[in-house]
Parts: sequence; C-alpha cells; structure tokens
Amino acid sequence: MRKIKLTVAYDGTDFHGFQRQPGKRTVQGTLEAAISRLNGTETHVTGAGRTDAGVHAWAQVCHFETGNPMPVEKWVTVLNQTLPRDLVIRMAEEVAPSFHARKDACWKTYRYVIDRSPVPDVFTRRYATHLPVSLDVRRMQRAAEQLVGTHDFTSFSSAKSSVEDRVRTIYRCEIREQGDKLRIEVTGNGFLYNMVRIIVGTLVEVGTGKRAPESISRSLAAKDRSAAGKTMPPEGLTMVEVGYEPWEGMD
Amino acid sequence: MRKIKLTVAYDGTDFHGFQRQPGKRTVQGTLEAAISRLNGTETHVTGAGRTDAGVHAWAQVCHFETGNPMPVEKWVTVLNQTLPRDLVIRMAEEVAPSFHARKDACWKTYRYVIDRSPVPDVFTRRYATHLPVSLDVRRMQRAAEQLVGTHDFTSFSSAKSSVEDRVRTIYRCEIREQGDKLRIEVTGNGFLYNMVRIIVGTLVEVGTGKRAPESISRSLAAKDRSAAGKTMPPEGLTMVEVGYEPWEGMD
Repeated sequence: MRKIKLTVAYDGTDFHGFQRQPGKRTVQGTLEAAISRLNGTETHVTGAGRTDAGVHAWAQVCHFETGNPMPVEKWVTVLNQTLPRDLVIRMAEEVAPSFHARKDACWKTYRYVIDRSPVPDVFTRRYATHLPVSLDVRRMQRAAEQLVGTHDFTSFSSAKSSVEDRVRTIYRCEIREQGDKLRIEVTGNGFLYNMVRIIVGTLVEVGTGKRAPESISRSLAAKDRSAAGKTMPPEGLTMVEVGYEPWEGMD
Repeated sequence: MRKIKLTVAYDGTDFHGFQRQPGKRTVQGTLEAAISRLNGTETHVTGAGRTDAGVHAWAQVCHFETGNPMPVEKWVTVLNQTLPRDLVIRMAEEVAPSFHARKDACWKTYRYVIDRSPVPDVFTRRYATHLPVSLDVRRMQRAAEQLVGTHDFTSFSSAKSSVEDRVRTIYRCEIREQGDKLRIEVTGNGFLYNMVRIIVGTLVEVGTGKRAPESISRSLAAKDRSAAGKTMPPEGLTMVEVGYEPWEGMD
C-alpha cells in the first residue's frame, strides 16, 4: 500500500461541510466516492480539519491509502476530470506510510473576509461576509494582538464543543484592508469548534465600538462562551494553509 | 415621469444573458419584474449593452422611467432586498429625461480573465476561463497594439451578425499578468457581436505561437470571420465600465 497526500481546494457554498454524512453532499464523501471508483475498492479519506457547511478551502490537506500504482501527477489529472467544478485537487504527493493529515499538522491558517462595501460585491458574495458597517481597524488590530500566544480558548469556542483541552496557541492574527475588503488571517496550532468565526465576531464588536480592545484578555480569562462576541456566518471563512513543520513565522 | 439611471453588477453564470426572453432567467427580465412590482405598473428597462449568456457585469448601466417619487438612494436598498443575490444594484441616480443608457454611451470597457494555473482556481472558476497553456505575453501585447484605432472589425465579429456598419474605434487593449491570471482589457466606442471574445481568442493564438503578432493587420484587412481566431467561452468576460463622456484615456 502507498500513502498519497492531496492538497484540495473547494468552494464550500454547496457542500454540507467536509465530514461525510449519509445522503448529503460533503467534501469527504465526494472525494471518497471519486477515489474509491478509481481504486476499485472503498477508500477512506482523512482530512487535516473538518470545515463546517459553507466554509471554503484553498489548501485543505487529505491523505488516503491505495494499492493503485498510478503515478502521483496522474491522480491530479484523473481525479479532476471526475470531480465537480467546486472541488479541485491542486496537488498529489506520495508520502511516508506514517504520514497523517490531521495528527501531523503543526499549524493551520484560516482567512476571514468581510465585504464592507455599501452593496455586496456580486463576485465575492460566495467567499466574503457582507457587513456594511464602519469598523475601526486600528482598534481591531490592538484587540487581535491580545489573542496571540497560548491561552485557554473556552470563551472562543462553541458551547456545544465537547473537547476537554481548550488550550491552543495562536501564532498570528493579522488584519489587512484591501479596498472595501477586510481580511483577517489567523494562524494557530489548532482551532476549537467555531473558534475563528467567534474570534472574528469579537473583533468586529471591537471595531464597531461595542467592545474595548483591552476586553479580549478579560474574555479569555472568563472561560465562558458568553464573554466573547457573536459567531460570524460561514461564507467568509477559508482554510488557507496547513503546515507540517513547526511554525517559524511568515516567509 | 422621472428617469432613473442604474449601475448594475451581476454574476452572469446562471442568467441566459441580459436580454429578456420568454420563460428564461435573464438580467433584463429579472430587473423589469422587480422594478415593475415596485412601480405597480409594467416598466421597461433599457441596458447599455446586451451581454451574452454567461457574461458578467461589474457596471452595466440601465435606465427606466417611473412616476414613483421614491428618493433615488431608496431604489438601491429596496431593489436589492428583492433581487436575487447574483444581481445587485450598485447605484441609482436621477438623470435628465433625454438620457439613454445605450445611445448616450461614448465607450465601454470589457475585461477578459484567463486562468493559466495548471488546475483551475476554484474561487474564480465562474469568472475566469481556465486555459493552462504557456502564453508569450509580449507577443500578445504587440498584437493588441494593432487593434487600437479605427478599423472595420468584420473579421472580429460573429458571422451571424447582421449589423451593416462594422467600423469601430478601439481606444485601448491592455494585457496585464497577475500571478496565474491574465487580464485583457479592451475599451472601445462600441463592440460587435462576440467581438471581445474573438479578439481574445486571436490574441491567445498569438500567445501560443500559432499566429504572428503582425498577422492582426492582415486579419483586419481580410474583413472575413475566418481570418481571426476562435471565439473564447463567455465565463471569462465581464463588462466593467460604460462611459458617458468622450474617452480621454485612463485616470
């Protein structure tokens, strides 16, 4: 058996999230059906992270095992011919049998895009959240700095989450303005359920003046979901990168 | 009666073009239905240009007449609430009763985007044409320069076109590289049926080496559709601007 690592991009709009669910169109289900058909045997695909319904990926990483001797470049071409247009294999590599897409991931970067234009930009409406409000970006940046570091992120995860250890390390949280768009990028060693969407929702409340930038430390200390801001909708969120070497900052 | 000028953006993917057609989802039909509902009387909408099925607009200009005294800003908000998400009113202005969206247009700019990446970019797949071939952009630029000026564009229009006067003036034809994307922008005083898509198809043939850059002048002189290149598919094409003052170059 060989192990293949895939780098996958998808437009999450018309998927019920990454994780396989009976009778629903999911990224994992669609990939597994295509790969199983090629392999001639049922093949399980493991992803680096489960993205929610409506969340996109520019470089989700997956792995699967196969006895198929087809050269790796061929996997890209052949799979893309059978996959729907909103799910694309960007790269395939043969990796060591021990490689695990989720367990070996050292860090992930997510990007959240807010469209602040008065009327929604029709060309980015699927990938940006329309929020035509005035945001003080400097205040948001001051708040974002307080998230960097190792913290218990209980306040910034869905109350539904059953994970016990909620300590995560955020390596960077950067906000960039590009015309009417605001791009918030967060890199961390792991993310709890809804964590990025709650972080962005809290930063937006700082930007509108509803919260003080300094309140973030108190929100973290509270270890209570109600101490942070609202959960932002999924369409603005994209998983942009997964790293398999320890984080050493941006290139 | 007042005359209202609208600036409209749409994702053409799921429209059967601009022009109203019975039983089909078109931009004009969708706009007219929404405006007629608001006006309480059947209202005709005139556009600056008819975009084909699958072609997009960032700033198509339309006009209509109304007895409705609603302030112009309100038209934007109220119409956007009822319009589907792939059709957005960006601006509404009250104009002189003599204004005509098509007849008064002095120039139009179209943009064609080619995605040259090995696998299609999933986030621009609706707005760019995937063409993973090697293109010599310098050659294409030399060819593009020959299109600028006043010429008979018979060779660069669909053989189906029934227009008699095929002389048009191209003010600029510029090619820019942005990562894997190639953006070709053409500004002219008017465009024949399929003209931009044929121009781009011809420039692509120059870029791949199939045609010489100098062949453009001969193609123009031939006044025969078969003397130019293939018609490119619609998804890469966007109407980006319509000008109502004589062209004076870029800002």
